[in-house]
Amino acid sequence: MRIAVIGGLAAGPAAAAEAKREAPEAEVVLYEASPHVSVGACEMPYFVADRLDGKPDLIVLTPEELARSRGIDVFVRHRVTHLDARAGRLTVEATAYNATREERFDRFILATGARARSLGVPGESASGVFTLRSLLDARGLKRWLETEPVRHVVVVGGGYVGLEVAEAMRDRGLRATILDPKGRVLAKSLAPEVAGQLDRAVHASGVAVRAEKPTEILTGNDGRVEAVRTDRGEIIGCQAVVVAVGVEPRTELAEAAGVTLGKTGAIAVDEHMRTNLRNVWACGDVVEVPRIIDGAKIHWPLAPTGRRTARVAARNAVSARTRTSGGDVFRGVTPSVAVKAFGIEAAAAGFSEEQAQEAGFEPLAVQIRHTTRTKVFPGSKPIDVRLIVDRARGRILGGQIVAAEYAAQRANVLVALIRYGATARDLAEDVDLIYNPPLAPAVDPLKIAASAALGKLA
Amino acid sequence: MRIAVIGGLAAGPAAAAEAKREAPEAEVVLYEASPHVSVGACEMPYFVADRLDGKPDLIVLTPEELARSRGIDVFVRHRVTHLDARAGRLTVEATAYNATREERFDRFILATGARARSLGVPGESASGVFTLRSLLDARGLKRWLETEPVRHVVVVGGGYVGLEVAEAMRDRGLRATILDPKGRVLAKSLAPEVAGQLDRAVHASGVAVRAEKPTEILTGNDGRVEAVRTDRGEIIGCQAVVVAVGVEPRTELAEAAGVTLGKTGAIAVDEHMRTNLRNVWACGDVVEVPRIIDGAKIHWPLAPTGRRTARVAARNAVSARTRTSGGDVFRGVTPSVAVKAFGIEAAAAGFSEEQAQEAGFEPLAVQIRHTTRTKVFPGSKPIDVRLIVDRARGRILGGQIVAAEYAAQRANVLVALIRYGATARDLAEDVDLIYNPPLAPAVDPLKIAASAALGKLA
Ligand SMILES: Cc1cc2nc3c(=O)[nH]c(=O)nc-3n(C[C@H](O)[C@H](O)[C@H](O)COP(=O)(O)OP(=O)(O)OC[C@H]3O[C@@H](n4cnc5c(N)ncnc54)[C@H](O)[C@@H]3O)c2cc1C
Ligand SMILES: Cc1cc2nc3c(=O)[nH]c(=O)nc-3n(C[C@H](O)[C@H](O)[C@H](O)COP(=O)(O)OP(=O)(O)OC[C@H]3O[C@@H](n4cnc5c(N)ncnc54)[C@H](O)[C@@H]3O)c2cc1C
Repeated sequence: MRIAVIGGLAAGPAAAAEAKREAPEAEVVLYEASPHVSVGACEMPYFVADRLDGKPDLIVLTPEELARSRGIDVFVRHRVTHLDARAGRLTVEATAYNATREERFDRFILATGARARSLGVPGESASGVFTLRSLLDARGLKRWLETEPVRHVVVVGGGYVGLEVAEAMRDRGLRATILDPKGRVLAKSLAPEVAGQLDRAVHASGVAVRAEKPTEILTGNDGRVEAVRTDRGEIIGCQAVVVAVGVEPRTELAEAAGVTLGKTGAIAVDEHMRTNLRNVWACGDVVEVPRIIDGAKIHWPLAPTGRRTARVAARNAVSARTRTSGGDVFRGVTPSVAVKAFGIEAAAAGFSEEQAQEAGFEPLAVQIRHTTRTKVFPGSKPIDVRLIVDRARGRILGGQIVAAEYAAQRANVLVALIRYGATARDLAEDVDLIYNPPLAPAVDPLKIAASAALGKLA
Repeated sequence: MRIAVIGGLAAGPAAAAEAKREAPEAEVVLYEASPHVSVGACEMPYFVADRLDGKPDLIVLTPEELARSRGIDVFVRHRVTHLDARAGRLTVEATAYNATREERFDRFILATGARARSLGVPGESASGVFTLRSLLDARGLKRWLETEPVRHVVVVGGGYVGLEVAEAMRDRGLRATILDPKGRVLAKSLAPEVAGQLDRAVHASGVAVRAEKPTEILTGNDGRVEAVRTDRGEIIGCQAVVVAVGVEPRTELAEAAGVTLGKTGAIAVDEHMRTNLRNVWACGDVVEVPRIIDGAKIHWPLAPTGRRTARVAARNAVSARTRTSGGDVFRGVTPSVAVKAFGIEAAAAGFSEEQAQEAGFEPLAVQIRHTTRTKVFPGSKPIDVRLIVDRARGRILGGQIVAAEYAAQRANVLVALIRYGATARDLAEDVDLIYNPPLAPAVDPLKIAASAALGKLA
């Protein structure tokens, strides 16, 4: 049996390794268009900031290490340009040589990931304009900052990547301005009411956040970025621009091969991560996945989902099994996200109010402020918790937590509770969250929020 | 309706306040033998260490504040010496006056708590020998340390209170020696394999831990403690001794009134916190409670359990309702405990291996070491996770987590998972724990432990 894995950053290597583990007799071949596999993409902002310890080149495994340790064949600088699933055939381009060849496989796993969304404004291809998606992006940005006379960087997009990049700029001693239509960071994950501590920390760091959109990137005679023009007609002078306005699944290869996409624009898969084509599975940032609470399909391009879907895809690709015959199943994601920037942890789990509403729930949101430790314990910090519950049954739908400490892990507690359908009453009364003066106040902030929700529901 | 609440430290005030909230027309009277109500008992070690911020006298509410804010009658220095439930009668002793009187009530809530266990060795009543249970204890110990020429303190018992006290001594610049039969701290909560980081931190702080038991406390001519003699025949010179060998429920009043005790020696209650006597409820450290996983009755003298059982007792006492008629129900505890001492967080949730075995499970324990953040992220620390699962179904029974950061909240994640019956497979594959370089590694240590358990189960 020959299995082809297409894409080698995170999901691809995980799938290839798992396939080989499950079927040592199979021949597993991985193709990656870029020169690198197994890149620690999530560390890139810290790499750019020069904050990482040890071997800081973000390469978790070289192609040779990946091949040797996992027993798979790895081809970097090889782009798959065509997939004929019925015929079991791939066309591969060795990009360094501009040469193509055909290869035959029995099964295919698509892990082509996502690309950074572009702005679609004039000047976007100027020197000094970057996205942050691949190792080449990260190295390019870092080199630019090290070699050009950069003083001010415009970061377009206030999502978690934009926020991390802005912090990286400040770590490098540069001025940074974030442009985000909402005029604040993490607007998709955090309600404005709960974001105060983060907003103030960003502001205190000297990073400006402006409710503007770039309409043009202006360059000097040398082709280098000089300024960004915004939809308010402002011109913001800068020597670098980082575009961090989200990602879109890289589906061209799949589409051309007849793979069906879902409503989100990502590849549609069943619970075995199988596409509509019999011998094609997909995983990672290129697929859409069911959301645990309501089963809706969402595009959730984060690493843990990629890793898990990769394993499911690989196991099923190897066995070609379905649920009824014991195939491995991906049950879905409980969306959760966390960042630490400018000394503040911000985390969200499950639905926001808007998402809950869109999903047909009648959400109730409550927000409380408490302390991270017993109030009199030194180092105790304010913590803001926003809890979103379903008015009908009091089920916990989501939560947002912001504090200088002990916030992100609390979102993990919510993930577990949401996953198992816990209600506000369960959390308020039944879940024994720890009390210890240096670690948590007498009544955990999550429980206080749940009690507040109960009070409002009654 | 007149309701008497007996005991005013933590559970008592919570019960009294809740009773008044539920039945504003009722007369709620609280009796407390000591001069204080609403004491922050868990902060006492830090109070003794002089580490607390602000008003550091541990009094959360004065009797007057408690009375005024909650609308209840509060009598401090009033000990209830006799309870005749059938006749609806209490005998109360005003300890300052050595005077007793009788009072009539319709319903009674016992919140008489627990007392520190004593050693039962000669010399225990010497000056300079303390337990740490009441505010008077804490003040007495602190004054002793401030006014006597203390250099070395022997702490008997290496549980979480003993550990916190030893840290307090070191914070005061004193030498401390912990005596514990197991020769290590938190021996009941942590398996020796997982405790390494904590053991090393205790050792590095200069606190000695000795596998010895005191057999006698030696005093000088002035009646002050001079040394502790141990079961190994050693004599350890010291100028103070703190006995922290656990607590026992204070059940005399209840027993004399005909209240049934459970196997643990604490008061037996039903799920409404009602005792065998029709008009008597009980809550807090004086009752035993069902453990969530197996329903076994345990004595679990921690503050969150006290608060919750207090509310259930109060609501049912007010309404005298039972489950079938909609009474509030206490479902049980998922035992969980956490400490931070000497820079290390140590936490445990659910069963230890021994407890699981005793409860009739066939436990499998796995232990992994990982990092608290991405390995290359500055500040990343080792984290040790021990996971205990049921061999039969892979159900998560318990876990122990030790690290310099991000440990305690992870125990809360386990609490939620245990509470809802999650299996190792669920945790390894289905629970979306956050990944973000400064906050957590790519695969959460809990998930790595769960995968290790799956591997061993297969
Ligand atoms: C700056 C940044 C920070 C992040 N931080 C976090 C975080 O904190 N937590 C978190 O959970 N997630 C984070 N993520 C997201 C995480 O990195 C992604 O979920 C993960 O990289 C997805 O892996 P993937 O392999 O599915 O897709 P990609 O990473 O997109 O990899 C796809 C690979 O396929 C290759 N490819 C595509 N088409 C072809 C073809 N036709 N032939 C050959 N090769 C092809 C591409 O070159 C690419 O290398 C972050 C991402 C970025 C960019
Ligand atoms: C040093 C220390 C640290 C702790 N740390 C933690 C921690 O980090 N986390 C945690 O969850 N828990 C902790 N605890 C435990 C927590 O403090 C207890 O669970 C809580 O105090 C129990 O409250 P209670 O009201 O049930 O009992 P108690 O605190 O024992 O109070 C009972 C009260 O009843 C009074 N009383 C008894 N009999 C009579 C009578 N006949 N008449 C009138 N009054 C009477 C007593 O004087 C006493 O004040 C700690 C405890 C100590 C001592």
